Amino acid sequence: MPDEASAALRVALAYHRAWTTGDVDLALTYVADDIVCDAPAGRIEGRDAYRAFLGPFARTLLGATLIAAFGDEDRALMMYDTSSTLVPSAPGAECLTVVQRKITYNRFIFDRVPFVAARQAMS
Amino acid sequence: MPDEASAALRVALAYHRAWTTGDVDLALTYVADDIVCDAPAGRIEGRDAYRAFLGPFARTLLGATLIAAFGDEDRALMMYDTSSTLVPSAPGAECLTVVQRKITYNRFIFDRVPFVAARQAMS
Repeated sequence: MPDEASAALRVALAYHRAWTTGDVDLALTYVADDIVCDAPAGRIEGRDAYRAFLGPFARTLLGATLIAAFGDEDRALMMYDTSSTLVPSAPGAECLTVVQRKITYNRFIFDRVPFVAARQAMS
Repeated sequence: MPDEASAALRVALAYHRAWTTGDVDLALTYVADDIVCDAPAGRIEGRDAYRAFLGPFARTLLGATLIAAFGDEDRALMMYDTSSTLVPSAPGAECLTVVQRKITYNRFIFDRVPFVAARQAMS
């Protein structure tokens, strides 16, 4: 059942497309109220906290390129590169759990070093 | 053809299992002589340089847990968590291109911040 098999990936790609094109509000419609996200700086709980995590970065984004995306019934795994006003190339990876078309869990990986360096250079 | 479809993933998982259980030599048998790896600190070219990148971390590894792994004919995408003597939890993601059962390209993501902090604490 290919349609069922890619259910999580369809949600993941819609979420990804939304936030990487600046529409964080649309991206958050794919995020569960009680999302849990394990990000480099620690655990983020709830959609409001997730907005506070994603929104500021999304506003600095110049572009994003999907490197790879796979999924099955309830999980999707994506890797992409981003270009932002802070860092010209900063790849990220997200492993999303999707329940009833909402992202309930995200394991989010990126390297914080270039962002720390960029903020230090600005201060 | 599920066998063909998962060819890259089979190589990726064998490579992953080898280096995360301390057998870097075995892992490197899955790596092309002229591998190119884009890692957080920059580009690594060639198997010897890749050994110098992976080996020291593999020697500090206490364990690794695969979070997700997907693949198609020629690419595999994996996310996992690692525990090492330096950092208790450090997830990584690798997107591998596989040609004729050898990994020719790897986009490798992890957060360097906890490793920088651990090394600073030791010095």
